[in-house]
Amino acid sequence: MAYQYPEYESLKFDRPADRILRITMERGKMNAMDFEFHHSIAEVWRHVEEDPDTSVAILTGAGRAFSAGGDFDLEEKVIAEFDWKARMWKDGRNLVLNMLNFSKPLVSAINGAAAGGGLAAAMLSDVTIMARSAKLADGHVRLGVAAGDHAAIIWPLLCGMARTKYYLMSGKALTAEEAERIGLITMCVDDDKLQETALEVALDLAQAAPSAIRWTKHALNNWMRMAWPVFETSLALEMLGFAGPEVREGLDAHLEKRPPAFNPSSPL
Amino acid sequence: MAYQYPEYESLKFDRPADRILRITMERGKMNAMDFEFHHSIAEVWRHVEEDPDTSVAILTGAGRAFSAGGDFDLEEKVIAEFDWKARMWKDGRNLVLNMLNFSKPLVSAINGAAAGGGLAAAMLSDVTIMARSAKLADGHVRLGVAAGDHAAIIWPLLCGMARTKYYLMSGKALTAEEAERIGLITMCVDDDKLQETALEVALDLAQAAPSAIRWTKHALNNWMRMAWPVFETSLALEMLGFAGPEVREGLDAHLEKRPPAFNPSSPL
Amino acid sequence: MAYQYPEYESLKFDRPADRILRITMERGKMNAMDFEFHHSIAEVWRHVEEDPDTSVAILTGAGRAFSAGGDFDLEEKVIAEFDWKARMWKDGRNLVLNMLNFSKPLVSAINGAAAGGGLAAAMLSDVTIMARSAKLADGHVRLGVAAGDHAAIIWPLLCGMARTKYYLMSGKALTAEEAERIGLITMCVDDDKLQETALEVALDLAQAAPSAIRWTKHALNNWMRMAWPVFETSLALEMLGFAGPEVREGLDAHLEKRPPAFNPSSPL
Amino acid sequence: MAYQYPEYESLKFDRPADRILRITMERGKMNAMDFEFHHSIAEVWRHVEEDPDTSVAILTGAGRAFSAGGDFDLEEKVIAEFDWKARMWKDGRNLVLNMLNFSKPLVSAINGAAAGGGLAAAMLSDVTIMARSAKLADGHVRLGVAAGDHAAIIWPLLCGMARTKYYLMSGKALTAEEAERIGLITMCVDDDKLQETALEVALDLAQAAPSAIRWTKHALNNWMRMAWPVFETSLALEMLGFAGPEVREGLDAHLEKRPPAFNPSSPL
Amino acid sequence: MAYQYPEYESLKFDRPADRILRITMERGKMNAMDFEFHHSIAEVWRHVEEDPDTSVAILTGAGRAFSAGGDFDLEEKVIAEFDWKARMWKDGRNLVLNMLNFSKPLVSAINGAAAGGGLAAAMLSDVTIMARSAKLADGHVRLGVAAGDHAAIIWPLLCGMARTKYYLMSGKALTAEEAERIGLITMCVDDDKLQETALEVALDLAQAAPSAIRWTKHALNNWMRMAWPVFETSLALEMLGFAGPEVREGLDAHLEKRPPAFNPSSPL
Amino acid sequence: MAYQYPEYESLKFDRPADRILRITMERGKMNAMDFEFHHSIAEVWRHVEEDPDTSVAILTGAGRAFSAGGDFDLEEKVIAEFDWKARMWKDGRNLVLNMLNFSKPLVSAINGAAAGGGLAAAMLSDVTIMARSAKLADGHVRLGVAAGDHAAIIWPLLCGMARTKYYLMSGKALTAEEAERIGLITMCVDDDKLQETALEVALDLAQAAPSAIRWTKHALNNWMRMAWPVFETSLALEMLGFAGPEVREGLDAHLEKRPPAFNPSSPL
Repeated sequence: MAYQYPEYESLKFDRPADRILRITMERGKMNAMDFEFHHSIAEVWRHVEEDPDTSVAILTGAGRAFSAGGDFDLEEKVIAEFDWKARMWKDGRNLVLNMLNFSKPLVSAINGAAAGGGLAAAMLSDVTIMARSAKLADGHVRLGVAAGDHAAIIWPLLCGMARTKYYLMSGKALTAEEAERIGLITMCVDDDKLQETALEVALDLAQAAPSAIRWTKHALNNWMRMAWPVFETSLALEMLGFAGPEVREGLDAHLEKRPPAFNPSSPL
Repeated sequence: MAYQYPEYESLKFDRPADRILRITMERGKMNAMDFEFHHSIAEVWRHVEEDPDTSVAILTGAGRAFSAGGDFDLEEKVIAEFDWKARMWKDGRNLVLNMLNFSKPLVSAINGAAAGGGLAAAMLSDVTIMARSAKLADGHVRLGVAAGDHAAIIWPLLCGMARTKYYLMSGKALTAEEAERIGLITMCVDDDKLQETALEVALDLAQAAPSAIRWTKHALNNWMRMAWPVFETSLALEMLGFAGPEVREGLDAHLEKRPPAFNPSSPL
Repeated sequence: MAYQYPEYESLKFDRPADRILRITMERGKMNAMDFEFHHSIAEVWRHVEEDPDTSVAILTGAGRAFSAGGDFDLEEKVIAEFDWKARMWKDGRNLVLNMLNFSKPLVSAINGAAAGGGLAAAMLSDVTIMARSAKLADGHVRLGVAAGDHAAIIWPLLCGMARTKYYLMSGKALTAEEAERIGLITMCVDDDKLQETALEVALDLAQAAPSAIRWTKHALNNWMRMAWPVFETSLALEMLGFAGPEVREGLDAHLEKRPPAFNPSSPL
Repeated sequence: MAYQYPEYESLKFDRPADRILRITMERGKMNAMDFEFHHSIAEVWRHVEEDPDTSVAILTGAGRAFSAGGDFDLEEKVIAEFDWKARMWKDGRNLVLNMLNFSKPLVSAINGAAAGGGLAAAMLSDVTIMARSAKLADGHVRLGVAAGDHAAIIWPLLCGMARTKYYLMSGKALTAEEAERIGLITMCVDDDKLQETALEVALDLAQAAPSAIRWTKHALNNWMRMAWPVFETSLALEMLGFAGPEVREGLDAHLEKRPPAFNPSSPL
Repeated sequence: MAYQYPEYESLKFDRPADRILRITMERGKMNAMDFEFHHSIAEVWRHVEEDPDTSVAILTGAGRAFSAGGDFDLEEKVIAEFDWKARMWKDGRNLVLNMLNFSKPLVSAINGAAAGGGLAAAMLSDVTIMARSAKLADGHVRLGVAAGDHAAIIWPLLCGMARTKYYLMSGKALTAEEAERIGLITMCVDDDKLQETALEVALDLAQAAPSAIRWTKHALNNWMRMAWPVFETSLALEMLGFAGPEVREGLDAHLEKRPPAFNPSSPL
Repeated sequence: MAYQYPEYESLKFDRPADRILRITMERGKMNAMDFEFHHSIAEVWRHVEEDPDTSVAILTGAGRAFSAGGDFDLEEKVIAEFDWKARMWKDGRNLVLNMLNFSKPLVSAINGAAAGGGLAAAMLSDVTIMARSAKLADGHVRLGVAAGDHAAIIWPLLCGMARTKYYLMSGKALTAEEAERIGLITMCVDDDKLQETALEVALDLAQAAPSAIRWTKHALNNWMRMAWPVFETSLALEMLGFAGPEVREGLDAHLEKRPPAFNPSSPL
């Protein structure tokens, strides 16, 4: 590859076709995100932007998962230290900021479970293609924090407010078919067609007029830019939740594989 | 119940389960709203907010209707007097303001016909569950006034602009299935499953992390807060319509059970 | 007709029923828009507004097409001269501005292929009814310019952001059924029911309370007014694209009936 | 004049210099606005837009006043009839809409008392020059209605919220010097320099790059377009006030040259 | 007083004139706010709203200060416990929400030092009158947290962004004269004229048309409502700061009467 | 310096005090911007962001000018080629985007003439200090293009709309004192105090709580983020102007040191 990308521990690059860059998330069995991974997925777009040989990017996951959420060690750090709260606030903000300002078309091929930062990256893609057997879930509330990493800025514009509230307030998972039906993703395809469909769409986009496409994308993203403070509120509230008792219980329950027993009272 | 609610003529409270408060609208056969009822449904949320024993609220209707619209006596008063226009403007505004700022999850169980202020309360709920045989309609234009009590702030974010305009400009009713399909409600269930489904959803929400859920809801509601002046315009125009001839004809036709004969000319 | 409309080369008027004005676009085989036609469709609404005998307007196309896009001569002029870029910028802006501020209900009967300025007019209608065999496409990117004439202001509010991006960034056509399913249009009907359905809807609206309907429409349009600068950005970027090489290749390829060969590099 | 303007009873045109059109408001001693006058000042901009010989317009008043407010007969009609409320709502809306979308630079030369619709036109100009002895006042509340014709959309962006509230909620008049100090107008000049200063500024603008200036103006006006529903709310509330008792008392007191005695209670 | 106000420990009521309610903040020497006081000043407006004998309210401070900021014990609690962070988030939000939705005119008479929650209440008043010798400061950054309780929603609309940033990022105090010059307050008067000027303004407002004034205020406040998520972001970030090390150092330094020694590094 | 900055031809770095980075623009006699310089000033903030030894940055100019506008060769290229239009659009956008998202406080010390990209950087700083003899001008319209590089997003929030329009539509220069009076800059100081005042302010900010200051800045910048599409429209219109005849005449006149003779007609 002509353009010299940084070395990323958890992102692999290949070129399935001329002018198409495929970024594969790979870390452990479920591609769970530690900070280095999260930081990579927040920053990589500035590099793809500069890469003169890439017209369109594809984002996918290695193995059976797309990316199944945050790493527990990272969550422990965010609970424990203010500096980690601030760092994740900044990185979470940069992920959304950089993706919304990434000029080239991005196609996500959601091959398996998508949650956490991986889900954020998928939902902020321009075209989202999902394998029929895959599921996605924004499980923030199950962990015990507000849904703050991307959802507030884009879900209402994808699938409307009723569905947004239902899935975000419950943390329930969606099948690919349901996600397609409500407009949360672009399309659901059979598992064995996922990568080829993503590549076809990417090739179509790569052969089309690049400036016309980028300015079309760019102009549409102004909807999210105008609503930016809505996102920022959700992000700061998520981080504030990491200073509270619910995330402690949520994480413990998860690690101990038991149902959480949240204190039903809240000063809010 | 530990928390001392005011006595409301048209709102009944019970606790179908621990930490769940069910509010049942009950007034006459169709739970039509007079001013006292409207004021109650606008103000009750400030109390549920304070009630330490309630995590989640359910709103439903007694008998066969959810709430089938405004009381004709009330409408006559609003037509006749400026003070009633001002009062309804204020109460209509407070209904939306208080519901958008109510921190706890609210589930609506729409058991039958929903229109008027009851529909407003349903559409501003977080989860809306509707019995398969129920219908909903925003019939403002049929009465001869603009759709101003809640629709402009939330319908476009629920079901998109084309469907919003079609239903609001025509005043046509929607079936539960259609409402579910287009995203106007969260889900449609068989009539005999309505209350149990609502309760299940409420229990799920009551057992989850309360601060995380409230901040998730809260952050999403910023979309409606940012668009607030859109609502205010619609509300003021509705009230201005009560000073005009169309509502007179609309109401007369309704009371006389004949089709209205509106003057097709308008200075607008 | 009592009201004296200007003579328009490409717009024909008739009255299929009392108080209903039908505007039929007619120019050549495919009702392609030259500047005079575009200017007419941008300005006619100010006249319909003043016409005391019209309560509701219907917009449709003559023959087999609704309106199948821009005239190539016009596009050549816009490529060649700054003054034509400025003129189209102004006319494109006025089309959207005047339609959003047109007070009376407008029903589009999309009888065949809809693209370009005709599609803009259709999507900015209040009720859009489409013949089952018709197709619509926003093909800006295929021509080599950004989708700038109306789409950015209204598609995300009609069918959500994922579908908007998919169709606008690819330029792909939609069937009427798909358009209905995702909320981009109000309804799809059998071809032979198109005109009668449009007329029925128009009659319903014409018999209803005119001020109530206009204020309802008017208040809802504030969503688009508030997002107006999003539209303006898209429009200016489209026009800027007419100063670049992609539209040259797009137009040449089209005229030479060959696939375009866009330079895949872009400074953007 | 090459361009054929409509005949306006209360607007006079002259050309103080090449490419400069001066519009002088003239009606009675104080240039008070009746409906025809208001309608003219709302619509004239569409014509100036089309006039190929005009680069810049100047708006001023004949005699000692700029325009000292609404005509009492008109106010009586608005109080008495819904149709007049609707008509003034529409005309008030068009005045602001048309001025914000008028592409050419507009200089106001405020030669004497400015209030009512004349003040609206002045404040929506691009450059406002005021004679040192002139005063301006938004006296809506003194008449007994909300300040709704232009102020909510532009005063906060001119002079900040504290000053806006003080002057609009009290109805107090401002001197030209105070108006300049707080940014409500562009500049205050000695009375005998008013017309020449306005002409100098207009000539400067007329000799400069016309497209560059119009797009600069146009882009800045997007601030007001984005806040448009704020204006619409104020306008609808003003009109609603014409259905109430305060304007009756305000107008009677004014006509009887006595202090008003408003009922201090309000249902709001 | 006919209307039965709750007993507030730190708010005293009197009636300096008919229909004028004066609220005097009084707690210790500097009227520093503990939680009960903050909660009172957040909630009292709902009661003044209901009080039928009050047309206009005046807010002032007892003794030499207006209200000189937060109580240190309260700040310790907010540092120590999540529940106090959540409680202050909610109360801070309610203070701004309730003041922006309080319908009656509110005049602040700033008699001495204004900071913290007292400053918030002053800046959210409709008319702010300040004694020449008084000073005001938003000292959040000096304490070590972001300026989050009201400033982000209103200062840019009062005095512009450059001055807002300068004073909020430095925490510097302003004299009354400077505050008047830049538009942060309505007017500065000699100390011995403060109460009488406030009363005069209040009386003027009380004798004017109440609905007209309330709707004027109400419509203008839509600017702040539209920008609401900007405020929410600032508030959540302030609360998140209470989980960090800077506020610890800021508070210690203050209590030990030494200059703070903040760690100059930040993960942000 | 520990952090390794890229080599910039036109930016020099020094450390006038611990934790303060001073960036001096230096290129030729007037620090005119060529593309490399513009790109540097757009990108440098991402590096200052990462520099662990810098708390506050100062931006100033070498010699007698701050930065006196764009390089004529660059303007010729933008006129001549679409790719340069696209490149400048992107770089202009990045300058504003990166400065608004730069987390650390930035102080501008405007030592002499400020125009073009240098003025943009100054106006987007957090604290702007200007030498008494310096002048600033946004001369876009004088060159023959719309004011598009930063002004539309920030001037109305700095000095209000009347002053913004006057200076941007005329291209007139402002003295430092006038700029201070209207709030366009933070303060004007005597020439020989400029650098020391900037350093004092920077030191104050560097010793204060860094996270608190950054989040305060960050939250305030959401006002500009929310209005982002207003900026984008102005930027695209500026670039479109580079495809037209006015900039040709503006540039020729400037190079030939004669007054421009713009064609007074415009299709706009």
